[in-house]
Amino acid sequence: MSTWQEVRACAGVCGRVVLTLNLTGRHMRNLWSLSTFSRSVLNQLRRCSPQLVQIRCKGEEPGWGSKKHIAKRRIQLQTLQDTMDPQVEQQLAPLRARCKDQGDIVRQLKESGAPEVDVKREVQELKNRKKELEDMILSLSPTDTFDRAKMNDLIKRRFFYDISFAIYGGITGQYDFGPMGCDLVDNMLAEWQKHFVIQERMLKVNCSILTSEVVLKASGHVDKFADYMVKDVKTGECFRLDHLIKQHFEKKLSEKKTSQEERETINRKITLLDGMTMEEMDRIVKQYDMKSPLTGNDLSDAMEFNLMFPIYIGPSGNLKGYLRPETAQGIFVNFKRLLEYNQGKLPFACAQVGNAYRNEISPRSGLLRVREFTMAEIEHFCDPDDKTHNKFDQVANTEMMLYSACAQMDGESPRKMTISEAVRGGLVANETLGYYMARIQQYLLKIGINPKKLRFRQHLNNEMAHYACDCWDAECLTSYGWIECVGCADRSAYDLSQHTKGSGVKLCIERPLKEPKMVESFIAVPDKGAIGKAFKKDAKAVQEALAALSNEDAEKMDKALTETGEYDLNGYKLTRAMIPSFKREQKKVHVEEVIPSVIEPSFGIGRVFYSLLEHSFRVREDDDKRTFFSLPAVVAPIKVSVLPLSNKQEFVPFTTKLADALTELNLLVRVDDSTGSIGRRYARTDEIAIPFGVTVDFDTVNNVPHTVTLRERDSTEQVRIPIDDVPLTVKKLADGKIQWKEVTDKWPRFIAQETTK
Amino acid sequence: MSTWQEVRACAGVCGRVVLTLNLTGRHMRNLWSLSTFSRSVLNQLRRCSPQLVQIRCKGEEPGWGSKKHIAKRRIQLQTLQDTMDPQVEQQLAPLRARCKDQGDIVRQLKESGAPEVDVKREVQELKNRKKELEDMILSLSPTDTFDRAKMNDLIKRRFFYDISFAIYGGITGQYDFGPMGCDLVDNMLAEWQKHFVIQERMLKVNCSILTSEVVLKASGHVDKFADYMVKDVKTGECFRLDHLIKQHFEKKLSEKKTSQEERETINRKITLLDGMTMEEMDRIVKQYDMKSPLTGNDLSDAMEFNLMFPIYIGPSGNLKGYLRPETAQGIFVNFKRLLEYNQGKLPFACAQVGNAYRNEISPRSGLLRVREFTMAEIEHFCDPDDKTHNKFDQVANTEMMLYSACAQMDGESPRKMTISEAVRGGLVANETLGYYMARIQQYLLKIGINPKKLRFRQHLNNEMAHYACDCWDAECLTSYGWIECVGCADRSAYDLSQHTKGSGVKLCIERPLKEPKMVESFIAVPDKGAIGKAFKKDAKAVQEALAALSNEDAEKMDKALTETGEYDLNGYKLTRAMIPSFKREQKKVHVEEVIPSVIEPSFGIGRVFYSLLEHSFRVREDDDKRTFFSLPAVVAPIKVSVLPLSNKQEFVPFTTKLADALTELNLLVRVDDSTGSIGRRYARTDEIAIPFGVTVDFDTVNNVPHTVTLRERDSTEQVRIPIDDVPLTVKKLADGKIQWKEVTDKWPRFIAQETTK
Repeated sequence: MSTWQEVRACAGVCGRVVLTLNLTGRHMRNLWSLSTFSRSVLNQLRRCSPQLVQIRCKGEEPGWGSKKHIAKRRIQLQTLQDTMDPQVEQQLAPLRARCKDQGDIVRQLKESGAPEVDVKREVQELKNRKKELEDMILSLSPTDTFDRAKMNDLIKRRFFYDISFAIYGGITGQYDFGPMGCDLVDNMLAEWQKHFVIQERMLKVNCSILTSEVVLKASGHVDKFADYMVKDVKTGECFRLDHLIKQHFEKKLSEKKTSQEERETINRKITLLDGMTMEEMDRIVKQYDMKSPLTGNDLSDAMEFNLMFPIYIGPSGNLKGYLRPETAQGIFVNFKRLLEYNQGKLPFACAQVGNAYRNEISPRSGLLRVREFTMAEIEHFCDPDDKTHNKFDQVANTEMMLYSACAQMDGESPRKMTISEAVRGGLVANETLGYYMARIQQYLLKIGINPKKLRFRQHLNNEMAHYACDCWDAECLTSYGWIECVGCADRSAYDLSQHTKGSGVKLCIERPLKEPKMVESFIAVPDKGAIGKAFKKDAKAVQEALAALSNEDAEKMDKALTETGEYDLNGYKLTRAMIPSFKREQKKVHVEEVIPSVIEPSFGIGRVFYSLLEHSFRVREDDDKRTFFSLPAVVAPIKVSVLPLSNKQEFVPFTTKLADALTELNLLVRVDDSTGSIGRRYARTDEIAIPFGVTVDFDTVNNVPHTVTLRERDSTEQVRIPIDDVPLTVKKLADGKIQWKEVTDKWPRFIAQETTK
Repeated sequence: MSTWQEVRACAGVCGRVVLTLNLTGRHMRNLWSLSTFSRSVLNQLRRCSPQLVQIRCKGEEPGWGSKKHIAKRRIQLQTLQDTMDPQVEQQLAPLRARCKDQGDIVRQLKESGAPEVDVKREVQELKNRKKELEDMILSLSPTDTFDRAKMNDLIKRRFFYDISFAIYGGITGQYDFGPMGCDLVDNMLAEWQKHFVIQERMLKVNCSILTSEVVLKASGHVDKFADYMVKDVKTGECFRLDHLIKQHFEKKLSEKKTSQEERETINRKITLLDGMTMEEMDRIVKQYDMKSPLTGNDLSDAMEFNLMFPIYIGPSGNLKGYLRPETAQGIFVNFKRLLEYNQGKLPFACAQVGNAYRNEISPRSGLLRVREFTMAEIEHFCDPDDKTHNKFDQVANTEMMLYSACAQMDGESPRKMTISEAVRGGLVANETLGYYMARIQQYLLKIGINPKKLRFRQHLNNEMAHYACDCWDAECLTSYGWIECVGCADRSAYDLSQHTKGSGVKLCIERPLKEPKMVESFIAVPDKGAIGKAFKKDAKAVQEALAALSNEDAEKMDKALTETGEYDLNGYKLTRAMIPSFKREQKKVHVEEVIPSVIEPSFGIGRVFYSLLEHSFRVREDDDKRTFFSLPAVVAPIKVSVLPLSNKQEFVPFTTKLADALTELNLLVRVDDSTGSIGRRYARTDEIAIPFGVTVDFDTVNNVPHTVTLRERDSTEQVRIPIDDVPLTVKKLADGKIQWKEVTDKWPRFIAQETTK
């Protein structure tokens, strides 16, 4: 390899040459293992022309581990692996082997440089085998008594959430959050703000949801954010292509007349469905002569359907936009303002919470696939050559369940290890990514996600978004399987580069050079008068675009103007008369422009919310009709209930005063003075997850000091406590400042039988 | 008058008869002044057929005061009127008289039953005169040195908010909120939650923004939520009709050749513009031969333009919806669930905070007229016959600046009075409306709205939404004039009635009758088999619709089936074979169905936010370059800054420890360790409204106990305080638990010169 100056100069001149670095062995996943010199060459190259440099592992795509690398990590990991029941392991062994065999096939194909389509097919088969293995593991796990119908009944009955516009028939894929759901989400988000925005001193923005097309064109969403579908040629009804095929096949499988051979073919096709191209699926539709499942009518050819909702801003219908499909783009387009706000310094992070929209073809699975949803996203901007994190030490020992791409390829299970081991071993790409993964886990556990139903899964590279160089999903286990709740990706310089290209505004930082250097620029020298006359109020924009031209584009323009007399600059037609000449200038520069890297933790709040509900759903052992949510006090919608023993007038002053005192502390209180036994009312407050309950009874009225009972939801334990001590005690409990045990230690137990009869 | 039973029976039979009660004198604004018997007749009538009863004051519309009534209130008010400079009053006298003269004309016309179009024209003239008077009052008020350009510079420079997608040229009418604006809005909303939702124990919902058309059809938005516009016939460019005319006229006025006579005509037309119909404006466009101001092309005829953004849900394009134009409808369509959640009891209130959208034809005035905005709305549901409020006593003595419809008609100024006087005097329609008005004022003052720039203006009835029976706007005085920030309306039963009609689902409560009564029903007896066969999966919906038929509709159906053999029920074509017969049934009922009334406080958060910025914008007396926002700590985005005296290493441990301790208390901290004098850095923290600042200096490092200086933004006073006492002291200050004076009383003053040089 030549020195980096030579290579850079070459890259600068060649323009479109992509320099591919084929790395081997230990360098593959961890660039820090390169020698200082190599790293420096590499980094400076990337800095100077980031779009010209690709880093590729030998025979592999980044994000995959090579055999050697796996071997190394396997030893590391084995020591941390949870002990597994040997009998269960015996049952799993053949499935694990099937995965591993397939993983090896994929590796081989890749190493031999097989065509992408072949690799893709085998990767899909690998995924199918992995799913087989996971399904088996789940089926062999200790029986989970979770009853989704029971939970949904509670959710609907107490209006956590329900389908939107139900009195008008409702719309699938849209939900209204009732008082309980709304407060739970708000509390989750408040905790999110504390945990991330305040604790990490992040910036925060709130950007427009109506987004102009040009923004989403640059981000790639206009071209790529699509699903496949077919239409009923007569009614126009649409069906998502993969859903339609699956449904058709499932019907076939249920029919007696289907032969064993046919069954096998169909099963094979179902498992391959996920990775098929539109053309492959279209062929299947035609081969099996599938019709509309609703009308039996013919179906159209398969087509792409962009999942964004188009919208026309203003009355003329000329300004097209979309409802944003994610919140992230609002942060990227504000990068310059945010950098300035942060006094020009990196790293910094910016958070945004808000709605995003996807026009799903056929929404399903309740809250897991909806058209309108809340996201909480963070974009952490850092120097591409320094992804260390100054608070990494604080999370270094966090133990996490990591399911690496390698483990998935080898049919292994996720492994527990500390995030520091994962980063040091090169499994997680860098400290900042690792730091956020650990913080995400801390957050999820704090709000009540079950740690046994949480794992971080590394993306296999063909499902990784085109920009990410390492990506991990926090997945929660629910009755729908493992679902992705939080993505945590190193998006590299992709987004800022795209918007720099799209807008012509440089979204980068200036980094001081160790030594100043001379740079040659090729500059258009416009005739300002001619431009002003031709473009009027747009003249300024044209001037700016001219000033921002790269050397390369300036050369191109000069050539075009000479050859054809015209050049199209961002839609403005320029003529030679407007740009009579070009000039070359030598300039001494002291800084270099660098496009920051972006690490992005991205929360699907609805999915976290749903997982949290499943994880905290409980049925009382002694009465299976008494269902409730065991939510931590910090997110529980209402913190405390106040229940008079009966609706006798003498209880009222106590109830009112206590409720007011609790409200005064900004605690959300529910007074339930309805008739019904105290047990039945406790059951009602349990249902809506109220962690603490106070009962005003005859002892309250008759004895001085006035005392009440205070009850904890999960244990149903009660203590007798002076009424004046209640507000502060509950406040401390709700804030997590004290634990319930401290209350039972301090105040006498109150034994009462809870009956809902 | 017959007994109410007779009248009701008559109403029931007549169907379309509207009973108009002409009330006189003291009854006009306060139904409670009727005798118990009359009130009972009236209320029961309204309950039984709310849409059939209109209450009209003699010769007046509700919401207007009669002369007699005014006389009474004037005495009451005079005692409360602020003393006014007699010289100023002298100047205002002729303008006041002009208003009064016009007010009298309007009253006369109304009393003589003049055609509506004539009344409307005179009301418009009244509004114009009122505006003249107000403009004069503003111009005679003590000079306000407010400099909008200066404030906007600060807002942009420190990224409170800015135009969206600016790197792509931006879109008018859309704004992105930067870290400062975002936090300020969040804090305003957090305080709103505490003040309303928690303190009043309201329910809360979060409903879909994508709203199906049928919902907004029922609410009236599809038909009525429109502005007028014209199009450039060649380019399709759109212009809001009134803006276009005004712009054309203003140009004419600026031209020298325009004669004095023409000028007067034009000025007259400009003032009348606000109240003109589309046809009247269209005539003006044609009369003056107006062209597109951009291209000079011809203009189309005037047309209505619905301000809602249409959206097609799902891929087929068949399910039309809109982005909601307000959040309220989501609460109304969930009324049944909410009532059930509240255990069937009234009154209760439900709040919703969220985005709403209006496709403005030509947005202007910065944040005051935008396409995407945040609303915070409350719907308080109560018994239509009991609008008392059990916490009214707590606000009874709140003094408010009220600008009644009468005062507006008489050219008088707003008057200060307590809300209790206003409700008792019948000026404000009922206790619940008054309670919310007082609570709205408390909230606005708490977050920092200037009480001298706040008033509540009663709607003149022709600008009142078609549903409201009394409506007051909290208006803030800004450099754009008095702007509506919060509406507070008694919407009566309008919304729930509309959705009952639209959906066929009864949105009402059941109220126990004192005595049970017999009711005759006329019921369709369907052939279930035939219906099942004809409508398949929709059969259940048809059955339900049949069961929900009113007697009147059942009669209609019977008649239609007999005469034509067909009847269209919500789009289902029914035949005689499906409904072979009808029957009459006598039923004893113990409850009556009542549609609750709705009192609605509705906050335009962006407008409150903007007013707050204007009201708190300050320029230091000694340095007019030092601008800042004097926001109360409770809403200030960042609560405290930590500034090391210089970037010397020895300060770092103190700065870090202190910042961490403050963060630990969930206070948003800004550490500014940039170079620059301490004065300059204070100026920077003042700009972003940080109320408290801590400086770590050499005394901090060298002396034990370590002390720092603590500074308050508005007074720039400083004290010297032990570093360990800082976190809790700042926390208490930020929460409003202690005042700055308590700090200066406790700790020694620190005198330092603040220089930004």
